[in-house]
Amino acid sequence: MKPIIGVDVGGTKIAVALARHDGTIIERSKRRTKAELGPEGVIHRIAETIQQTLDSADMTPKQFLAVGLGMPGPLNPDKGIIYHTPNLPGWKNVPVADLLSSELNLPVYLENDVNVGTMGEHALGAGIGTQDMVGIFVGTGIGGGVILGGKLHSGHRSGAGELGHMVVAAGGPYCGCGRQGCIEAVASRTAVVRAIKAGVAAGRTHKLSEDGEMPERITSGTIARAWERKCPLTREIISRTQWYLGLHAASIINMIDPEMLVYGGGLVEAFGDAFLKPLIATAKQYMLQHTGPETRIVTAKLGDDAGTLGAAVMARQRIS
Amino acid sequence: MKPIIGVDVGGTKIAVALARHDGTIIERSKRRTKAELGPEGVIHRIAETIQQTLDSADMTPKQFLAVGLGMPGPLNPDKGIIYHTPNLPGWKNVPVADLLSSELNLPVYLENDVNVGTMGEHALGAGIGTQDMVGIFVGTGIGGGVILGGKLHSGHRSGAGELGHMVVAAGGPYCGCGRQGCIEAVASRTAVVRAIKAGVAAGRTHKLSEDGEMPERITSGTIARAWERKCPLTREIISRTQWYLGLHAASIINMIDPEMLVYGGGLVEAFGDAFLKPLIATAKQYMLQHTGPETRIVTAKLGDDAGTLGAAVMARQRIS
Repeated sequence: MKPIIGVDVGGTKIAVALARHDGTIIERSKRRTKAELGPEGVIHRIAETIQQTLDSADMTPKQFLAVGLGMPGPLNPDKGIIYHTPNLPGWKNVPVADLLSSELNLPVYLENDVNVGTMGEHALGAGIGTQDMVGIFVGTGIGGGVILGGKLHSGHRSGAGELGHMVVAAGGPYCGCGRQGCIEAVASRTAVVRAIKAGVAAGRTHKLSEDGEMPERITSGTIARAWERKCPLTREIISRTQWYLGLHAASIINMIDPEMLVYGGGLVEAFGDAFLKPLIATAKQYMLQHTGPETRIVTAKLGDDAGTLGAAVMARQRIS
Repeated sequence: MKPIIGVDVGGTKIAVALARHDGTIIERSKRRTKAELGPEGVIHRIAETIQQTLDSADMTPKQFLAVGLGMPGPLNPDKGIIYHTPNLPGWKNVPVADLLSSELNLPVYLENDVNVGTMGEHALGAGIGTQDMVGIFVGTGIGGGVILGGKLHSGHRSGAGELGHMVVAAGGPYCGCGRQGCIEAVASRTAVVRAIKAGVAAGRTHKLSEDGEMPERITSGTIARAWERKCPLTREIISRTQWYLGLHAASIINMIDPEMLVYGGGLVEAFGDAFLKPLIATAKQYMLQHTGPETRIVTAKLGDDAGTLGAAVMARQRIS
């Protein structure tokens, strides 16, 4: 079976992996997206990054079956069109699959980045062997994907998996999407950082850095280290975040009762497995009890490779 | 094709319909459950009600394919066992399908009552022709069912469709289930009645009856008539209820993106189509926008027959 070129394109970086069927990687590379170049420039950079990766592996496009491309949406996976995307200025109704395909002479399959991450975890990561699995990625925002019967569930308008915009706090804080009380508005890294800044601004004691200074940039790593240092402010906010995510998990389980929830994304990865314990306790309290095997709630396994490997998995599924 | 005996058993009544394949009803009847008789007594009453209905139609069990039985859970549809159910005292691990089957000499198929109602609406009511549809029933509680790919989605532990226990108001009012902020706790008829009573107790002006007296029992009909009379308290509470249900609808759509949501249950039926307009407006605000056909949000069509017809549909699907 020929390998596939898995590509993950976000607002900041382009990642490429030459992936075999079993999930092993022949070669990988990464470069900055330079979103300011606009669609044409970025697509050209994607093609260049792929070419460079092929060169390092001493391979040619002909040796590959296809390109799988994960990108932020909204997008149309069937037509391979990006409608628009907040982190890539100038992208409006861009037929990225066709454009990239003609640069490489290979078929290109496009899918939403978090759906792709979920497909990767399902086929090659934490969800191997499950039929119904939900992926939840907690970072700048909260995204997700729904696997039902072993396949990505896209929904009627390819709109399924927008798990970050399920409302858990009716009338609560405004979300980046303009609505109120979405789980993303109360439990993403963005929400955590906002709560930390509000606490610090109000004079709360914190241990956000070794020297007690307020760091310039608060990353997921900053938050995880403050938590390890027992920063009281961070502990309070993370505890609330885990509670919200637990309620959200239970809502998903009460609705479609999957076998497994898989958590990834920058915030979860910075903490590791410890992040899930309180979340699971809340989820168990809020999920209705039924007989049968327990719902498993676990961390993602593919880490940095989730996007590229997932894109390769997605392309292989779409071909077959 | 032989007809099926559809049976709907709740805490207050047993309903039976002799249902043809096309959803037409040969004969129907209804009697009180007399839950106080306990499992044996109630199962005997179910058998009697069926026999009585057969007698009225001058038919015998042999002329039927099976019995479809919808009951409140938690239950095990495969084994035909009711684990327990709040409205039927004494029911604990009752193998109701086997017991009823030996009284009638017909196979008996058991399923959760709201799943059954959803299957009825899907096969014979508002959802005809849809592949992915969600049924939401708003009455004393809030229940639901999820149809995916034209079939009931049961989930990993037969726990799917517990839509009333998705959390929309984290940390909000206690729910009948013991948890907090479930949609059932803020938007069921029970929640509406509680809010009305709290308003009246605080001296709020109301028009809950023609003469301005507080009615002894507040039914869905009482609420709908007060709303028509422009009772300011009722209007405020119903408006909030519709808003909560709209957020809940959007959460479901953002997660699995079905073709259609169908609303039934006592509270929705008492108001009719008018109930859905504000709910739809909120849902549209909160569902992420995608291209493709719009999600339809409609009222149920089968009314009082939803339970029995749905049970017949369920049995026919389980046989084939």
